[in-house]
Amino acid sequence: MDVRIRAGTKEDCKEMQRMIMELAVFEKMPDQVKISHEDLERDGFGQNPFFECLVAEVPEEHKSKEGHTIVGYSLYFYTYSTWEGPVIHVEDLYVMQEFRGNGIGKGLLSKVAELGQKKRCQRLNMTVLDWNKSSLEFYAAKGAVDLTETEGWHFLRFHGQSLANLANQAPKD
Amino acid sequence: MDVRIRAGTKEDCKEMQRMIMELAVFEKMPDQVKISHEDLERDGFGQNPFFECLVAEVPEEHKSKEGHTIVGYSLYFYTYSTWEGPVIHVEDLYVMQEFRGNGIGKGLLSKVAELGQKKRCQRLNMTVLDWNKSSLEFYAAKGAVDLTETEGWHFLRFHGQSLANLANQAPKD
Repeated sequence: MDVRIRAGTKEDCKEMQRMIMELAVFEKMPDQVKISHEDLERDGFGQNPFFECLVAEVPEEHKSKEGHTIVGYSLYFYTYSTWEGPVIHVEDLYVMQEFRGNGIGKGLLSKVAELGQKKRCQRLNMTVLDWNKSSLEFYAAKGAVDLTETEGWHFLRFHGQSLANLANQAPKD
Repeated sequence: MDVRIRAGTKEDCKEMQRMIMELAVFEKMPDQVKISHEDLERDGFGQNPFFECLVAEVPEEHKSKEGHTIVGYSLYFYTYSTWEGPVIHVEDLYVMQEFRGNGIGKGLLSKVAELGQKKRCQRLNMTVLDWNKSSLEFYAAKGAVDLTETEGWHFLRFHGQSLANLANQAPKD
């Protein structure tokens, strides 16, 4: 299939928000999605953007059943390791069900990897749910290591009120 | 003890690099540290810095056995959740052994939380090794949730040659 992978723009945010929700439904946590396309527009395309993204686009004649031509996306950003320097972190990688098996996921992932290399990254990080075996196998087949298994890294979070409580105890300058 | 927590500067990078190595020794992975203080100076204090940091400083009369007055640090950066927006990620939080038990770790963590709140973050994320029970208890006592335990998130990485292989397969523009 003729698929174009390109940088996402402000105009893609509505389609991105639709797919963010589709991914959250797949991950069985749709209630956790609080983001709107306006939020994405502000946070990704204003001054000091928090993220960058790629979208996968098919020609009009291959559009989805519901009429979508944007059929996949990846949202990523740059972080830092105090052991190895710049890191590229893939927050989301998604391809619509009816377009899977065409190499679109691999195209998005390898494009993000290429962007990371250009910024001297030695690592591409991501988190995946332990029951999502198809994704774990997809990434493992391409060379990813599960560091929770091999080194014992656990993922911790302060959220909402816990974070506010912590902030309220900050020492005054 | 009279401890000052302040933003780290370029001039603190040598002391930061020393403590990064001390932390890696504690985490039993000192061989993984490839970073120099020059790398930290370039990556944190040039154009488009990859990270920000805080240091904990004690007065000269309370300096460490080896004569250090910078006795702790936290390195953090901003990331993004497609469900909840801006996130603050704590990459490292460290206090030298002989200065523990004085609230310095809590001071650093709560200060990072405060900075996160100012950028609208609803989440403070971090990763911790599963055998590091004292840190896991420290964070849990302050309200952190272990999402690897509760939701099953695993931490994956493409590293070095695996990342290069992936990048080499990127579709051409």
